Amino acid sequence: LRKGFPEVIFGEGKSAAQIVGIMERMQLQEQVLLVTRVDAVKAAAVLERFAEARYDTEARMIVWQRAPLPKTGLGTILVVSAGTSDIPVAREACLTADAMGNVVKSVFDVGVAGIHRLMAHRSLLEEARVLIVVAGMEGALPSVVAGMVSRPVIAVPTSVGYGVNLGGLTALFGMLTSCSSNVAVVNIDNGFGAGYMAASINQP
Amino acid sequence: LRKGFPEVIFGEGKSAAQIVGIMERMQLQEQVLLVTRVDAVKAAAVLERFAEARYDTEARMIVWQRAPLPKTGLGTILVVSAGTSDIPVAREACLTADAMGNVVKSVFDVGVAGIHRLMAHRSLLEEARVLIVVAGMEGALPSVVAGMVSRPVIAVPTSVGYGVNLGGLTALFGMLTSCSSNVAVVNIDNGFGAGYMAASINQP
Amino acid sequence: LRKGFPEVIFGEGKSAAQIVGIMERMQLQEQVLLVTRVDAVKAAAVLERFAEARYDTEARMIVWQRAPLPKTGLGTILVVSAGTSDIPVAREACLTADAMGNVVKSVFDVGVAGIHRLMAHRSLLEEARVLIVVAGMEGALPSVVAGMVSRPVIAVPTSVGYGVNLGGLTALFGMLTSCSSNVAVVNIDNGFGAGYMAASINQP
Amino acid sequence: LRKGFPEVIFGEGKSAAQIVGIMERMQLQEQVLLVTRVDAVKAAAVLERFAEARYDTEARMIVWQRAPLPKTGLGTILVVSAGTSDIPVAREACLTADAMGNVVKSVFDVGVAGIHRLMAHRSLLEEARVLIVVAGMEGALPSVVAGMVSRPVIAVPTSVGYGVNLGGLTALFGMLTSCSSNVAVVNIDNGFGAGYMAASINQP
Amino acid sequence: LRKGFPEVIFGEGKSAAQIVGIMERMQLQEQVLLVTRVDAVKAAAVLERFAEARYDTEARMIVWQRAPLPKTGLGTILVVSAGTSDIPVAREACLTADAMGNVVKSVFDVGVAGIHRLMAHRSLLEEARVLIVVAGMEGALPSVVAGMVSRPVIAVPTSVGYGVNLGGLTALFGMLTSCSSNVAVVNIDNGFGAGYMAASINQP
Amino acid sequence: LRKGFPEVIFGEGKSAAQIVGIMERMQLQEQVLLVTRVDAVKAAAVLERFAEARYDTEARMIVWQRAPLPKTGLGTILVVSAGTSDIPVAREACLTADAMGNVVKSVFDVGVAGIHRLMAHRSLLEEARVLIVVAGMEGALPSVVAGMVSRPVIAVPTSVGYGVNLGGLTALFGMLTSCSSNVAVVNIDNGFGAGYMAASINQP
Amino acid sequence: LRKGFPEVIFGEGKSAAQIVGIMERMQLQEQVLLVTRVDAVKAAAVLERFAEARYDTEARMIVWQRAPLPKTGLGTILVVSAGTSDIPVAREACLTADAMGNVVKSVFDVGVAGIHRLMAHRSLLEEARVLIVVAGMEGALPSVVAGMVSRPVIAVPTSVGYGVNLGGLTALFGMLTSCSSNVAVVNIDNGFGAGYMAASINQP
Amino acid sequence: LRKGFPEVIFGEGKSAAQIVGIMERMQLQEQVLLVTRVDAVKAAAVLERFAEARYDTEARMIVWQRAPLPKTGLGTILVVSAGTSDIPVAREACLTADAMGNVVKSVFDVGVAGIHRLMAHRSLLEEARVLIVVAGMEGALPSVVAGMVSRPVIAVPTSVGYGVNLGGLTALFGMLTSCSSNVAVVNIDNGFGAGYMAASINQP
Ligand SMILES: Nc1ncnc2c1ncn2[C@@H]1O[C@H](COP(=O)(O)O)[C@@H](O)[C@H]1O
Ligand SMILES: Nc1ncnc2c1ncn2[C@@H]1O[C@H](COP(=O)(O)O)[C@@H](O)[C@H]1O
Ligand SMILES: Nc1ncnc2c1ncn2[C@@H]1O[C@H](COP(=O)(O)O)[C@@H](O)[C@H]1O
Ligand SMILES: Nc1ncnc2c1ncn2[C@@H]1O[C@H](COP(=O)(O)O)[C@@H](O)[C@H]1O
Ligand SMILES: [Mg+2]
Ligand SMILES: [Mg+2]
Ligand SMILES: [Mg+2]
Ligand SMILES: [Mg+2]
Ligand SMILES: [Mg+2]
Ligand SMILES: [Mg+2]
Ligand SMILES: [Mg+2]
Ligand SMILES: [Mg+2]
Repeated sequence: LRKGFPEVIFGEGKSAAQIVGIMERMQLQEQVLLVTRVDAVKAAAVLERFAEARYDTEARMIVWQRAPLPKTGLGTILVVSAGTSDIPVAREACLTADAMGNVVKSVFDVGVAGIHRLMAHRSLLEEARVLIVVAGMEGALPSVVAGMVSRPVIAVPTSVGYGVNLGGLTALFGMLTSCSSNVAVVNIDNGFGAGYMAASINQP
Repeated sequence: LRKGFPEVIFGEGKSAAQIVGIMERMQLQEQVLLVTRVDAVKAAAVLERFAEARYDTEARMIVWQRAPLPKTGLGTILVVSAGTSDIPVAREACLTADAMGNVVKSVFDVGVAGIHRLMAHRSLLEEARVLIVVAGMEGALPSVVAGMVSRPVIAVPTSVGYGVNLGGLTALFGMLTSCSSNVAVVNIDNGFGAGYMAASINQP
Repeated sequence: LRKGFPEVIFGEGKSAAQIVGIMERMQLQEQVLLVTRVDAVKAAAVLERFAEARYDTEARMIVWQRAPLPKTGLGTILVVSAGTSDIPVAREACLTADAMGNVVKSVFDVGVAGIHRLMAHRSLLEEARVLIVVAGMEGALPSVVAGMVSRPVIAVPTSVGYGVNLGGLTALFGMLTSCSSNVAVVNIDNGFGAGYMAASINQP
Repeated sequence: LRKGFPEVIFGEGKSAAQIVGIMERMQLQEQVLLVTRVDAVKAAAVLERFAEARYDTEARMIVWQRAPLPKTGLGTILVVSAGTSDIPVAREACLTADAMGNVVKSVFDVGVAGIHRLMAHRSLLEEARVLIVVAGMEGALPSVVAGMVSRPVIAVPTSVGYGVNLGGLTALFGMLTSCSSNVAVVNIDNGFGAGYMAASINQP
Repeated sequence: LRKGFPEVIFGEGKSAAQIVGIMERMQLQEQVLLVTRVDAVKAAAVLERFAEARYDTEARMIVWQRAPLPKTGLGTILVVSAGTSDIPVAREACLTADAMGNVVKSVFDVGVAGIHRLMAHRSLLEEARVLIVVAGMEGALPSVVAGMVSRPVIAVPTSVGYGVNLGGLTALFGMLTSCSSNVAVVNIDNGFGAGYMAASINQP
Repeated sequence: LRKGFPEVIFGEGKSAAQIVGIMERMQLQEQVLLVTRVDAVKAAAVLERFAEARYDTEARMIVWQRAPLPKTGLGTILVVSAGTSDIPVAREACLTADAMGNVVKSVFDVGVAGIHRLMAHRSLLEEARVLIVVAGMEGALPSVVAGMVSRPVIAVPTSVGYGVNLGGLTALFGMLTSCSSNVAVVNIDNGFGAGYMAASINQP
Repeated sequence: LRKGFPEVIFGEGKSAAQIVGIMERMQLQEQVLLVTRVDAVKAAAVLERFAEARYDTEARMIVWQRAPLPKTGLGTILVVSAGTSDIPVAREACLTADAMGNVVKSVFDVGVAGIHRLMAHRSLLEEARVLIVVAGMEGALPSVVAGMVSRPVIAVPTSVGYGVNLGGLTALFGMLTSCSSNVAVVNIDNGFGAGYMAASINQP
Repeated sequence: LRKGFPEVIFGEGKSAAQIVGIMERMQLQEQVLLVTRVDAVKAAAVLERFAEARYDTEARMIVWQRAPLPKTGLGTILVVSAGTSDIPVAREACLTADAMGNVVKSVFDVGVAGIHRLMAHRSLLEEARVLIVVAGMEGALPSVVAGMVSRPVIAVPTSVGYGVNLGGLTALFGMLTSCSSNVAVVNIDNGFGAGYMAASINQP
């Protein structure tokens, strides 16, 4: 039905054998399969069976593709993230959007406590057609970024932090009450969903 | 900077005089002004000063435009809503997207407890380029709609309900944990934000 | 007192020895004993002492019966579930209702993001006298199912999900605010309780 | 489709004119119409147009019926409630089940702090085919009642109380964690839903 | 200052060596030392140094006394508990009150879902001068017990349960909104505090 | 049964007529009737019918007694409170304990931010047999007071405050986690319950 | 004791007469009295008795001073705020710090969605010795400001917003999880507390 | 920019190798590096590479300094803490403030349940220019301390406790609603942040 749109397997809590089983069943009718939240050991076991798949250690994600998709997206998707701990989620978004036929760029480590670092990337921000902004703790980055562009921003709260970060709820709520209007939000740590949504927006 | 993008005034808790004051100041540099959450009495007072503005009783919203914008959106924006009590929020989304230069269609009263009513509108759903889905109570409608299309869905939870609807939190959380991946969410009752985000997605 | 109604032992956090001890005491005055949330290792140890008991790996449950009960229920109990991760809870409901003398049928993997899969089972839904609907994430399935039948629906939220699924609270609250009226709800992951309640409804 | 099953209008926040409008539209295809949460003044205005409808001051509810339904329920539905402040919700349940063709009995003011009062009604409890138990504050009554019968109990938490009653959440959570197994729960103050669910269970 | 009142060491998260260290320091000026939440292995290590101390496996508690205190309490302290999983907390209360010079009796396994079991102990309840009632899940037992006596009841919520028991919050809130007035509450799982408070009430 | 123990009517949300009705019914079998949370206007209307009752404007409470009870309590009950806004709740406790036959003393306005004020009342604290400590905001006072005495302390959180006082939950939770052990807690603003519990402790 | 440090009266829920009463009592031993959260009508009544006091309509605050204090603060206190709705809280902070002998400056309307507006005030930010930053909604402003200076920042969350702003909790939690380290936080809407804390920091 | 202000690495969840990597990169441009929440094993591995760094076992913290900073702070910073379990957080604050060029003193184990212990340190409290107060459980200590001094108090809630301590939220909320005005608060267990904020206040 939805050509080139990947199916995803949530890897957390599944054994390598279970993942392989599901992939074997799905691969018959799919062109792209993604497996998220897979550690290196499990990934190695899966790749023994699916040698043509790739594992990204930062994103902790397996990408299996029948063939690389042509880059059909309308414009560039830019993934921006705040702290180093947010990088796994940001990378998950990058790989998902990439696997769905998009040119993806990224700017990491530009948290709001050093606003000049973000400012330095102004033109990159302005050139993107869709932006994904990943941030934990107080989740302030999407508001600032969205205020600098007119394109849509997908905000991704992460569970990074402690105390009243409340496992990511604080970042989530901050993003939902953003004073910028070109922002919509996905679930905590949902890099996959953000990449998918951005790709769906960027479709011709 | 962002041509044709409206400024919005949150009308709740502001007097007619305050609203008029802000509008007078803003009108100098803006082409479109929106005022949300305004009751009929306050609206009448505002329209005495801004005769060219329109008030929509259902959306409880004032729209002031220097001149109607040409319809520049890439495709149709479709607004879908669940119960009759969700209509004000849905209409707020419609008017916002319309004021930003988009062709907007709508389907109301297609809650998930009568799934056949939604099914009857299948082709309308499939033709839209961006969808806004408004629902209160358990907030299930966006998942179902997003499963029927490949275009992006902006989900808007409403505060409609009682008891464990928790003022809209239940619908919000339901939408964020949606099992469909082409969904992103805005704040509770934020019809304006949904319309704005959809328009920003639909930009050429 | 309540003939044929099983006693249940909550297996989580109890050792095999403790479970055996409680079963030995209870077996004197009961006809059916259920032990829930037991892993395979513990179950093996218990079955060494109670060779006549059965262990179901999917439901993670031990069923001990003095003798199979005759099927006395008024009609069929149908168990419907959304995602693959919801299956253990759904199976717990099936086995409980079965052990209490009911004909039990099931339809798994019919989540709301692919509504056509559910539609394909329409007649099965309409023939049941009592329905149990199991779903995690946004918990939308019971509303949709209940809108398609006039018989009572017992909704079971599961803890399946992450982020704002809040360990199942989001699905629970969604089900309690269902816009269908023939729905009542049990505790998160409480497949046993749902099966028991359905059997109590289905009594002649 | 569902013969004799009433449609309900949630009266809170709707004007008499709006209620009359909806009733006029619905009455064409319905046999029973219920309007809940209506105060006496609004009700009087509605009854001017629908003289054949009845208003119950305790339940704060309007019942309109084309003709009284025959009593087709399999057995008696018993409504039990704890404190005097719980009576409106209990009555809403009674009237709903009654309007759906059931023999309904009730026992009010039997809170758990005076357990002997409940004990005095033992035979009434045992004779019912379906029980509805309404309680606020700590919401303990359904557990005790369900322990005394083998028939299904629909528990209704009320928002009665203050401080950590949390608007009914405490009673709701108490009922969901009930140590009795023949209990399922509806939303806070949802007397209508309890009556409807009980009637759907009691169908032949 | 407060003669015979024990000092308590919270054992959770402390090593045997740390516990021994604190006990050696405290023992110089105290007559009674209690160590709570200690597992059997740690306890054995502590008792090697303090051979005169006793370890209670059910309460998971070490009691060290210079000499047994005379029984000076005004009356009997009765500890009542609901489920078998509540017993460790109940025993912690027993041992604390006993170590403070009180005659302590107990009745376990009298949950509200089998109210007749509680009724069978009526005279025991009526003879006590102070009652401690321990319950998890919906926490209904203290209300029922307090309604049967005129003496003060100390209610202890336990974290026993799952889903919406919320780690004991549901039982806690239920007890605080009790419809009986001779009830006051201590923190979740705080058997020690309940025993201490009861002893302080029972002082001559 | 429980001689001299008052019945209480929760006045909030009840009309003067309703209160009078309940009092007329109850007065036949009771010696003491308390009505809490009554404003001056309603109280005046009630006292027209019950001229022998007294209304306390500070406590917002009506006390009706067949005859004053003899002072039978074992010792003095001392009510301590923190801020001026806590006084209504503190007075409710005083009047309840007094009406149940106790000598009641009080010390108001001794919040922990001016600890020397509390210190000045040391001997009064030490002479009491039971203490009630009322505090809002951070609810710290009971811990401090309980550390200065060996008698039991009933802590009453009030809803006084704003922001994260969370309607009294912060004070409640603070009191439940008190580092003093001779403390038990009642519901938010429950001065009546505290007075009743203290009286039940102080019984001979 | 603490010379020149003001006493504050929380005006909300107190009548003009009550406020005058407290002021008359306090004025004998104080040099500065502040009354917060007073509307214009009440303020007029209070100023009839205290003609020398001033009322600030924006801050909704009365300031009474025996004599203006000399400016003794070590440096300038700068109050920064995000949206127009945050101004009342910001002004409350200004007036409090001013009344305690400080030079106070302010920059309003510099929310993070238009980061260039904040940038324009860089030198003002760098010159301040203590900063107070007031923001509602996602509460992101203090992080950004604190990243631009090395002086201490007192962050004040406001209750401005709707939906998941949760009455200010979202802004509060965002500020507490700030990725800048020179930030500490006061209660929601607590402009007075922020001004007082800043003045206490700025003491010579 | 900010001379002598340390950079901090949050050690939790990072391997020794990762910590060493970050330190090597940062050390080029920093004078002081702090690593928090490091256990002894990881610390040993880090110190093999950075022999000049110090590890504090109580604070679980590594301090690396190019050279000890001169003591430039305006006055003494005093760190006060309540229970023994709060000491790690208190020590983290001490070491941070010390590494930033301040004279730091401390008073531990002065919880509010033994108020006389705190009173004994009165002059120490009065001599400090900035105070940090660390407390878990009900978090009452900052209110009491702040009432005894006129200097600013930074309050640090800890996660020490169980049940309704809610992982430190109860202490946090208690501190934010403190009835003393010279108090501002940092995140739960954030000893580093408190030390940093105090140092920033104490700058000349
Ligand atoms: N990393 C991820 N983040 C968010 N959602 C995911 C992720 N991976 C998988 N999912 C969701 O989980 C579903 C698959 O779950 P499962 O059938 O258990 O593998 C998909 O349909 C997605 O909605
Ligand atoms: N008293 C009530 N309690 C609970 N739910 C109700 C009640 N009355 C109406 N409803 C629900 O509200 C819906 C009607 O809402 P509306 O279309 O706004 O009148 C129904 O489908 C019911 O699910
Ligand atoms: N089992 C227990 N339950 C509740 N509180 C306890 C328990 N044991 C010890 N405590 C509390 O913990 C404090 C001792 O903590 P610590 O100094 O860390 O040993 C005591 O003052 C008690 O208030
Ligand atoms: N001021 C009060 N604070 C707390 N609980 C109260 C108060 N007054 C009455 N109650 C409770 O409310 C019940 C009476 O409620 P009602 O029957 O509605 O008058 C009593 O049994 C008490 O448990
Ligand atoms: Mg951030
Ligand atoms: Mg819906
Ligand atoms: Mg689902
Ligand atoms: Mg009850
Ligand atoms: Mg129980
Ligand atoms: Mg206080
Ligand atoms: Mg802001
Ligand atoms: Mg403390």
